[in-house]
Amino acid sequence: MRDVAIVGVGQSRFGRRNDVNLQELAWEAVREALSDAKLSQKDIQYSVVSNMGLWSAEELPAVVVNEYCGLTPVGSHRVEAACASGSAGVVSAYNMVASGAVDIAMVIGVEKMNESPTDAVVELIGRAGYYLWEFENFGLTFPGYYALHMSAYMSQYGATEEDFCRAAIKAHHYGSLNPKAQFRSEITMEQCLSSKYVAWPIKLYDSSPITDGAAALILAGGEIAGKITDTPVWIRSIGYATGTANLSKRLDFTGLDAARRAADAALRRVGLERRNVGGHFDVAEVHDCFTIAEVMAYEDLGIAERGTGVQLLREGQTYKGGLIPVNLDGGLKAKGHPIGATGVSMIAGLTDQLLQRVQPRERQADIRRGWALAHNVGGTGHYAYVTLLSLSREGGPQ
Amino acid sequence: MRDVAIVGVGQSRFGRRNDVNLQELAWEAVREALSDAKLSQKDIQYSVVSNMGLWSAEELPAVVVNEYCGLTPVGSHRVEAACASGSAGVVSAYNMVASGAVDIAMVIGVEKMNESPTDAVVELIGRAGYYLWEFENFGLTFPGYYALHMSAYMSQYGATEEDFCRAAIKAHHYGSLNPKAQFRSEITMEQCLSSKYVAWPIKLYDSSPITDGAAALILAGGEIAGKITDTPVWIRSIGYATGTANLSKRLDFTGLDAARRAADAALRRVGLERRNVGGHFDVAEVHDCFTIAEVMAYEDLGIAERGTGVQLLREGQTYKGGLIPVNLDGGLKAKGHPIGATGVSMIAGLTDQLLQRVQPRERQADIRRGWALAHNVGGTGHYAYVTLLSLSREGGPQ
Repeated sequence: MRDVAIVGVGQSRFGRRNDVNLQELAWEAVREALSDAKLSQKDIQYSVVSNMGLWSAEELPAVVVNEYCGLTPVGSHRVEAACASGSAGVVSAYNMVASGAVDIAMVIGVEKMNESPTDAVVELIGRAGYYLWEFENFGLTFPGYYALHMSAYMSQYGATEEDFCRAAIKAHHYGSLNPKAQFRSEITMEQCLSSKYVAWPIKLYDSSPITDGAAALILAGGEIAGKITDTPVWIRSIGYATGTANLSKRLDFTGLDAARRAADAALRRVGLERRNVGGHFDVAEVHDCFTIAEVMAYEDLGIAERGTGVQLLREGQTYKGGLIPVNLDGGLKAKGHPIGATGVSMIAGLTDQLLQRVQPRERQADIRRGWALAHNVGGTGHYAYVTLLSLSREGGPQ
Repeated sequence: MRDVAIVGVGQSRFGRRNDVNLQELAWEAVREALSDAKLSQKDIQYSVVSNMGLWSAEELPAVVVNEYCGLTPVGSHRVEAACASGSAGVVSAYNMVASGAVDIAMVIGVEKMNESPTDAVVELIGRAGYYLWEFENFGLTFPGYYALHMSAYMSQYGATEEDFCRAAIKAHHYGSLNPKAQFRSEITMEQCLSSKYVAWPIKLYDSSPITDGAAALILAGGEIAGKITDTPVWIRSIGYATGTANLSKRLDFTGLDAARRAADAALRRVGLERRNVGGHFDVAEVHDCFTIAEVMAYEDLGIAERGTGVQLLREGQTYKGGLIPVNLDGGLKAKGHPIGATGVSMIAGLTDQLLQRVQPRERQADIRRGWALAHNVGGTGHYAYVTLLSLSREGGPQ
């Protein structure tokens, strides 16, 4: 398989972006990625657009985005895998470069969720389960799904609401340092604990927001990448899996089977197992759509043993300087969660981390091993992708 | 690049399928494809689901379809490129096999359009243009878009409504022979000409129907394909392009720029140019969402010179026994046009044609060169894909 490198990344400002339309939002990220790679639109040979899009008036987001960004007439398609759409778009573009079909491809993740009223968005996201059973019959929406996970975890492992609030406090801390984040203020334990319940035990501050945002990556084949940049970041492994859409078929609610399978597959390819994973990577991004999701991610990835994820938060091990810094951009919780953009944004952010160009320095991880990990989940574990990035083209993590 | 072969194909019955839900419809095609390849679900390593899905209650069709078909927990994502979603799904899966990421992948195209009321479907399809300009400001729906093409063609080249009805009569002729087609009756010139106008000069019989249907392909890497089947059909080239979403930016309305670019790219890879193309292929499937679209396809592909496509219909050159038989399954017009399934169904049908296993024999093309061509358009030329299939793993068409 041909090696594939990231040679340019870009991200828009996240938030409630009523100042731009979908394609203008995408362009903020595309422009930055082109500028980063010192390439122009004519160098791009294919474009994959990650977008969920249900809340938008544009039904063909890929063509509209591509045209506005000056990419027409290159080939393009849209990819959707719920909240993991961004990572699925990376898989699609990665394989077009890896196969040799094209030399340079772009992935554009974009979502403009605030085009619809908030209650409509919540209903649409709620439908992401198996429609007939979970949504129509039981009326679950997304906070309800993750409340099942959080209450099961609290019951099984004796974790408290305080434990989960620690993830939110960390997210807001790093969000406050990220000029592109939706939420740029610190929160206190008291604020988190006293925030209103959305679906017990999930409170407002356990939940990621509704966000507009975009992110873009430029991928290039191994022999081309070195001509474009002196600092390629290599996509070394991508693991993926799907899980049952019927929650009633799940054997447990304290982790996501698909995430564990995706992690196994991704890690195996670079010679690792799903244990002590934190010791091999300098920094990670995990899918913290709710605080419980961050804790499950630690465990599903093998950073912590089952039931001990909250311990990492108690000890501050996922802050900068800890065992493995996680979500130094604020994560879905504070940077925001524009569905199609999220997975792309994770990888863009980790690229910046590996290249040690994050500002301010308080959210730049120490890069010693040269490896980073992204964990992106769609639905409630319907899809999972784990992507491993490295400064090295060869060899596994130490 | 690793060679990729089709080792199994399947198609559901097309039509108004109120007897099944989305996943049951998909399973009809998946079951047939697995049986054709003599493989089981555990042999499939990735699944790409092509689906537009706006009219369906299921918001995550890929996971729901995969689970019902017994494919979970393999990785999966949904691909959308409007009415070319099927071909875009093939591109995505093809490159996963071609890169070596997986050895065996499945593409499942499925659409259940009749879940929504017809007028809602027509509105949703109409939005496939650039929403703000074409749909919201001018109120165009799809027959309106293609009426612009048909009236321009009639004006520029002196073609008549009769000329276009010939495409519909051919489609219904072959549809009458295809047990899986939505429309299984012949029509006469008089019936076509006297059918009511939808958007002048497009009449009811110039238009493809609203359809539920599914199709599936199993793709395998070159060295694996020979172990699965004695009769692999090779995907030898895929060309793709996008076109402007703003009709006001189009320079002409008698052809589709994206289709010409896609054809150029696909043909170039096997040593052909976009001229006398009919002489190199045994059979073709073209995107006849309206009769004018079939005529434009002849010209955009280089089967006919500009302005002479209708001449092929007058001479019957695209019937079995002519220069190049086109849409021997009834095409979008009579077999039906379940959006996400259409591009997959074209390639499934051409695989059957190349393997000379089409029943009844009246719609089996004579296979002498061992090459077939599929032409799939999304929107009004927003997307175009041209896919070339061959019985030979090497060498170009004669």
